[in-house]
Amino acid sequence: MMAVKITGVGCYIPEIVRKNEDFLNHKFYTETGEGYDDHPEVIIKKFQHITGIKERRYVSEELNVSDIATIAAQSAIKDAEIDPETLDYIIVAHNFGDVKHGTTQTDILPSIGSRVKHFLKIKNPKTVAYDIIFGCPGWLEGSIQAKAFIESGIAKRCLVIGAETLSRVVDAHDRDSMIYSDGAGATIFEKSDDENTGVLSHESATFTENESHFIFFGETNKANVSDTTGYIKMYGRKIYNFALSNVPKAMKSCFDQSGKDIRQLKKIFIHQANEKMDEAIVQRFYKLYEMEMPEQVMPMSIDKLGNSSVATIPTLYDLFLKGHFEDQTLDKGDVIMFASVGAGMNINAMTYQI
Amino acid sequence: MMAVKITGVGCYIPEIVRKNEDFLNHKFYTETGEGYDDHPEVIIKKFQHITGIKERRYVSEELNVSDIATIAAQSAIKDAEIDPETLDYIIVAHNFGDVKHGTTQTDILPSIGSRVKHFLKIKNPKTVAYDIIFGCPGWLEGSIQAKAFIESGIAKRCLVIGAETLSRVVDAHDRDSMIYSDGAGATIFEKSDDENTGVLSHESATFTENESHFIFFGETNKANVSDTTGYIKMYGRKIYNFALSNVPKAMKSCFDQSGKDIRQLKKIFIHQANEKMDEAIVQRFYKLYEMEMPEQVMPMSIDKLGNSSVATIPTLYDLFLKGHFEDQTLDKGDVIMFASVGAGMNINAMTYQI
Repeated sequence: MMAVKITGVGCYIPEIVRKNEDFLNHKFYTETGEGYDDHPEVIIKKFQHITGIKERRYVSEELNVSDIATIAAQSAIKDAEIDPETLDYIIVAHNFGDVKHGTTQTDILPSIGSRVKHFLKIKNPKTVAYDIIFGCPGWLEGSIQAKAFIESGIAKRCLVIGAETLSRVVDAHDRDSMIYSDGAGATIFEKSDDENTGVLSHESATFTENESHFIFFGETNKANVSDTTGYIKMYGRKIYNFALSNVPKAMKSCFDQSGKDIRQLKKIFIHQANEKMDEAIVQRFYKLYEMEMPEQVMPMSIDKLGNSSVATIPTLYDLFLKGHFEDQTLDKGDVIMFASVGAGMNINAMTYQI
Repeated sequence: MMAVKITGVGCYIPEIVRKNEDFLNHKFYTETGEGYDDHPEVIIKKFQHITGIKERRYVSEELNVSDIATIAAQSAIKDAEIDPETLDYIIVAHNFGDVKHGTTQTDILPSIGSRVKHFLKIKNPKTVAYDIIFGCPGWLEGSIQAKAFIESGIAKRCLVIGAETLSRVVDAHDRDSMIYSDGAGATIFEKSDDENTGVLSHESATFTENESHFIFFGETNKANVSDTTGYIKMYGRKIYNFALSNVPKAMKSCFDQSGKDIRQLKKIFIHQANEKMDEAIVQRFYKLYEMEMPEQVMPMSIDKLGNSSVATIPTLYDLFLKGHFEDQTLDKGDVIMFASVGAGMNINAMTYQI
């Protein structure tokens, strides 16, 4: 039997720290263009209470998605101690591509995968590079694809990257703009003969009947302006209800396919979009097993890093493995889960044995 | 043994016919912003002689990539006589997403796959929808991914679509704008027990060392304008030389893996970017087998449809199967090949037994 194993992880955390108080001068408006009665300080305080976000990271002006994807990839390649020329696939998840500072157009010609491969100076033409668009769960879906390629025999070693610069597509007049962050995370998936380690199961779903536009590209909240630029927009309340109804069930379906006992599950690396929502999701997940949510089962990075979309989970996992969570470790044989929800609306999960 | 079979094909050919003479009033400029000495009529005549393009198709103002992708998908679903609720994947290849008439922004939030699934009214959340960005070879690469998913056991039935509206991203001051067209093509790939049919082999490659920006997003050729909008751009001569050096070899590598005799190869459905280039590629391919290129081996649609990027091959294949090429047919057991080259720079090929 063959296994699919993560052999390297890396990330890039942008240097610019934007704190909540930096938004004090922003004029926020509702979806219908009305101002808020509350003072910005009150709005920000409520925001922090619900989301858990205190600060977020933005890339500097000269950097784009393809640049930070490359930095994260270099880190993962170094971590895995592999020759990048031996990669069969470079899979890059994003949702806006390169959006240069001061512009509004998505530039994915050539694909971000091709740009990363160029920057990594990989000469081997058999390293196939492509981009996947799958909302925030894109990195995890790319990982599921890497697993399928390895299992089908067409690949042995894949680089999967999630990279996004949401700071380039936010509406400064929308409270939700405070959620979004920039970042890049990368992982190497490899074929392994060690059956006692690797990916155990996965689950993917796309909900579009009523949900396709819960997260969408829309105009500024500010009324009476001629700006028709598209920005990232969401219906937070609808997403919250959708996620609570569907993510715990998808996680359970994924976990049950792993064949492991729920008590073996040591950590859940969940997409960081909203702290209260993540807690509610994981509590409901354990409730499906008639259990209380164990302490420290869900490492969080949202307070410092916000929601960096596709970059969130691989960045969080890298930080964890590199010891950024005090007193929290994983041992050989431990089972972990990755889980994500986002635009599409897409939900996915993967269980993995260390 | 299991096989992966195409069970349905469909396409959408946009209604607006734009003839070469419609470009007579265009002011074309070189890459460096200089005008041409030749009269537009001469430029257009030369263009037609090399590319074989006489006219191309544009979508009407109200249609976007997600709309035409849906129409092509509906046609393929009908052709396959399947219940769309049984689809495991919807894979949409494109390179610019929805670009509404009169705007310049790519809108892929949510993904085109999610939009198509919504328009198709598919309720099943296990129909996973995502987009792939892989240049013009995107539909064929999506097909290779569908095959891998079926072979790895995570899918039985996949819808693969290629859809693009290049008319929304062309620079009217660039001669190359005459190459580009709009369109959508779709196919259903399914698991089959009939071993004597289906995908035989595939080949994929990404060249980025010097080639990553042979096709790129760049500014208008017109000098001294303040327009910083990005448009589709290419270095035609470089692409021509690159394609002739690399595509025939990739096709041979793919064909040799099929285990078939070259005399069994009945048709090559090649990406339609330039008639002279396609002929030179296929001639060189046969030269590698010390053969002359057989007559009628390469059905062409470029004269009427131009280069519709990812839509070209599935559209061409659909037209062929539906009898649009007089006196040309395929019989059970015949071997065919799909081959493509485009932005990335990516090259791929697939052999298939009818």
